[in-house]
Formats: sequence, structure tokens, C-alpha cells
Amino acid sequence: MFNKLALIGIGLIGSSIARATKLKGLAKTIAISTRKAATLEEARELGLGDTYTLDAAEAVKDADLVIICAPVGAYAEVMKQIGPALMPGAIVSDVGSVKVHVIKVMQPHIPAGVHLIPGHPIAGTEHSGPKAGFAELFEGRWCVLTPDAAVDRIAVDRLISFWGALGSKVEVMDAAHHDLTLAITSHVPHLIAYNIVGTVDDLEAATQSEVIKFSASGFRDFTRIAASDPVMWRDIFLTNRDAVLEMLGRFLEDLSQLQRAVRVGDGAAMEALFTRTREIRRSIITAGQETAAADFGRPHGTAETGAPVPAPLDTPEVGIREHGGGEDA
Amino acid sequence: MFNKLALIGIGLIGSSIARATKLKGLAKTIAISTRKAATLEEARELGLGDTYTLDAAEAVKDADLVIICAPVGAYAEVMKQIGPALMPGAIVSDVGSVKVHVIKVMQPHIPAGVHLIPGHPIAGTEHSGPKAGFAELFEGRWCVLTPDAAVDRIAVDRLISFWGALGSKVEVMDAAHHDLTLAITSHVPHLIAYNIVGTVDDLEAATQSEVIKFSASGFRDFTRIAASDPVMWRDIFLTNRDAVLEMLGRFLEDLSQLQRAVRVGDGAAMEALFTRTREIRRSIITAGQETAAADFGRPHGTAETGAPVPAPLDTPEVGIREHGGGEDA
Repeated sequence: MFNKLALIGIGLIGSSIARATKLKGLAKTIAISTRKAATLEEARELGLGDTYTLDAAEAVKDADLVIICAPVGAYAEVMKQIGPALMPGAIVSDVGSVKVHVIKVMQPHIPAGVHLIPGHPIAGTEHSGPKAGFAELFEGRWCVLTPDAAVDRIAVDRLISFWGALGSKVEVMDAAHHDLTLAITSHVPHLIAYNIVGTVDDLEAATQSEVIKFSASGFRDFTRIAASDPVMWRDIFLTNRDAVLEMLGRFLEDLSQLQRAVRVGDGAAMEALFTRTREIRRSIITAGQETAAADFGRPHGTAETGAPVPAPLDTPEVGIREHGGGEDA
Repeated sequence: MFNKLALIGIGLIGSSIARATKLKGLAKTIAISTRKAATLEEARELGLGDTYTLDAAEAVKDADLVIICAPVGAYAEVMKQIGPALMPGAIVSDVGSVKVHVIKVMQPHIPAGVHLIPGHPIAGTEHSGPKAGFAELFEGRWCVLTPDAAVDRIAVDRLISFWGALGSKVEVMDAAHHDLTLAITSHVPHLIAYNIVGTVDDLEAATQSEVIKFSASGFRDFTRIAASDPVMWRDIFLTNRDAVLEMLGRFLEDLSQLQRAVRVGDGAAMEALFTRTREIRRSIITAGQETAAADFGRPHGTAETGAPVPAPLDTPEVGIREHGGGEDA
């Protein structure tokens, strides 16, 4: 599909692209470049590519597909390095979680005849680094591309085919619309998760053991999100500020109402909200974006504490049930 | 261990107790009582107990262990019914998520010679109803008991042994301290999850399909929590109001600071917070309260969209990595 794929940065996403590209034979050569020598060495040991270099310009030489997989904060420096080395006809893309800012940074360094097609695979885990990647990461997940209207349609189609071959469903979208949508489905949830884990961390002196003990009561789900890569997330909030503040404002308005319902004991308002939120989850499961298994299919019983025996649900027909009239607890 | 166990209410928790009790032979007889006939019929079809009745007083007759597994809002009515029928020497317990309020409601109905030992197993999933339960639910999880200091120590020890036999680790604690701790590790996280899913639901008209598509970017974790039983959670916020408002206040103070960091672009403050939150998750995993697998061990690849092939990480040594200097994205 491509002659030479250059990956600039080889963390969770970059290394997953490398693994899937190799597995499916989508590029003849994979060139990997990183800023840190240790990371490059890790990639080499894992056999993720064909060539390895600390010089990003060398990596992109003769590459017909270049994907920047570094934190958004590193883009300016990367683009300055690779801009002059880009081959005419090459596609330059990325995997960053914000798109308006990224286009602003990348566009000035794109030579005539090179196609800038920013991208964002909606996939990931809380783990970071070259070891954390796996070839199946993109399967069944969406990948959003945000090319300018002027970009060559054939180049866009080539990149759509590439992501399709990685297992993704692809959507082409306006960059600003992408940033606003992701602010509410991703950026604000991460902000909130980081925040509440921080709140708990501040209580720690008095209640550290209790927080850990009782984390299974809901809190531990937040800690997963709040274990995501700090630099990547710092950069997201630095570069998608307006959309994040807009959506955070809406969240806070709603939370004020809910806080008031708790204060005045408005049980009807609470039950109404808690009931309609179930629908959203049903839609996500129906759309194949989530598993219906309890606790995400997280192991229960002895498996969870280290022993090898999984303990599946003993009734296969379990699902999210409509409220049954008060017997559930 | 017990002669007759009476379960009042047979949802996720009650039916899990029934299953585990039967599996491990912890009671000669299990009597099940529910308010709704349909739920009772479901329990009977599942073979969860030995006797089934809509009359709670009949269920507790001759029972030496009674566990209320109904929503907290139903306790007053349940206690009025069962109070006069309780056998001298019986232990009366519950599984409610708040304890100060529950003691206030239960205590007046406890006859002399009957031991009130409120309980709270810190275990559950987002699913509700008799079908959702499973015998392994309590394994490795904490169960908190909050008996008054005057309660018979032998009775407390019997209940500790019972929960131990179900697989739980047991902690005896002051009821008020329980309520404050759970407010931050459970109640506020649920309130926040319900709230953000509600915020998204309000956006739905314009962006329904996008919300579903991009839910894999963090939001879908919140939807799991926000799919929990509405009545149970309404009752928690109605009955643990002060502790919830106190902890919500702290969360909001911290969120104001974080909001300001986003607004002024204070990347250093954000990175510092996002880094220290990782430690909390590490502790929870180390304590055996959570799996270290990426995405909670949620299936990836084709498994997630319905096909039967699981796609595990290809490197077993993956963990939460210290920030590696900017190559991760």
C-alpha cells in the first residue's frame, strides 16, 4: 500500500501502528524516529521497524507516508526538522487528540506537493510507551481525518484505505467540530478523572488505606483514566483550551443543578437523571463501541487477586435491566 | 454456619449472597422475600433459595441471620413488617451503601435480644436484578460492618466469619466514618458520572452519533458507572447528603483550580497533577483491588465487536510506565 512509512514517535499509538502495518504488510519499509535514544532502543529491541534514527529528517526521506505520533507539544520542533526533507507527493499525518491547533502548527512547514491530512484514531489504553502497543488496538474503533477542503482527494482516499486496513472505521470531519466533540467525550472526562483522583490524593494522609480498600466502589474506574500519559494530556489542555472550557462550563452548570437536588432532597429529579443516563450506555454497547459484560469484563473472584481462575457470570443473558421497582440493591 | 438465612430483596447483591451461601453451604435454609411478585418469581426460577414469599415477616421467622438487600428507601417499611417477627438471638444486617441513616431507621424496630449489625459489601457491577448476581462477587472485596459498641461481640464475630466465608475481607468501622469515606470513593464518583452522561445526553440532538462513535475516548467508562441502579443511587444521595455535599465541595474547589490552570495555560501545574494521580492507581493495583491489564482487561480487536477471538497484549510485561520524556502519545 505504501513504499515507506515513517513514524515520528513510537509510544502506545505509534508502536501499535508499526505492529499492525507489519502484520498486514501495508508498507515495504517502516522507519522509526524518536527524540530519546532510550525509546528508540526499546523500539529496536521490540523489532517494531526496519530502520531506526534519532534524526527525524532522515526517517522521512523518501517516505510516502509520514505519521507524527509524538505529543502535540513536540510538533513544532518535529515539523521544523522534517519539513525540508519531505518528498513531493508524500502524505503527512498525525495521531494527535486536537486538530485545529495541530493544523496551525503543521501547515506552515508543508512544502508544495505534500499532502497534509491530520488524523486522530479514537483508540488507546491507559498504558504508555512502545511496549504498550498492540496490533489490534484500532480494530472496530473510529479514526477521524480532518483534511482541508483543498487537499488532494486521492491522497485522502489512500489514507482512508490505510486506516481501514488497520481495522478502523474512518470519518472525515471539520477540525473545529472534531475538537468540540472530543472535548466532551474525551477531554473533559479526563480532566474530571484527574481532578477527583487529585482530591482523593489530598485526603490521603488521614485515609490512604481506606481509599485503596474502597476503590472498588466506583473510584477505581476514574483512576484508570487518570493514569493516562501526563505530557500528552497536558498538551491537549494547552491546545484545546476554548472547547474544553466551553464543555466544562456546561458540565458545571449541570452539576450545580444536581448539587442542589442533593441539597434539597429532590429524589424525583435524581431518579429521572439516573434513569436516562442508562440509555446512552445501551447505545454505545449496541454500536459495538463497548462490551456488555459486567465491569467491562474485568476479572472477578480469585482471578482479580492474582490466581489464574477466571470467574465468568453464571447467567449468560445478563444485561442492563430496566429498573425493576425497587428490589435491586 | 447458620440455620436459616432470610434475604429481604434479591437484586444483584442479595442474589450473589444467595448463590455464594448455597455454594459454600453456609446456611441450612435460605428464605427469600421480595416486594414485587415478578422479582420473586425470577428468584424462584433461578433456584436461588429454598422458600419464597412476598411476606417479609414470614421469611424472617426462625431465621438466625436476616440480611436486608433492598434499596435504603424501603428499609422503614421492611423493618415495620419484620420487627415483631424477629427471633431472639437473631442477627439483623443489611448491604446498604450508607450506614448512619440506616441505623437510625432500623434501630427502633430491633427487639431486645436481637443483634443489629449493619453491613456494606464494597462490591457490585453496573447490572441489576436477580440474574445479575454471581457467587464470586465478594471474593477479595472488602465488607464493612458498623455495629454499635454495645452489640454482642460473639454475634459480630459470627457475621465476620460469614462474610469471610463469602470471600470478603472484613473491616469493623464507625458508621459516620464509613459514610464520609464512601462519599469520596463511591458516591461523588457516581454523582459526577451521572452528571457528565447527562450533559452529553443534552447535547444529543445535534451530535448523538458522534457521542456514541467517540465514546471509546474516555467517556464510555463514565457511562458504565452511570448505568447503575437509579433507585438505589437516588436513595444514597437522599440519605448521605451531608457527607456527599462535603466531598463534592472539595472536588469543586479542586476543579476550580484546574479550570483556572487550563484557562491560563499553566502546563506545569497540570503535568504535576496528572503525574501524581498515577500513584493512586498503582496502589490500588498493588492492593489487589484492581487488575493491571490495559482497559481493565476489556476485550480489544474483533472480540469487542462480537467475534469470539480475544486479543491480549503481545507483551506480558506491560504496566503503567513512568513518563518517558515525551515520546508517548
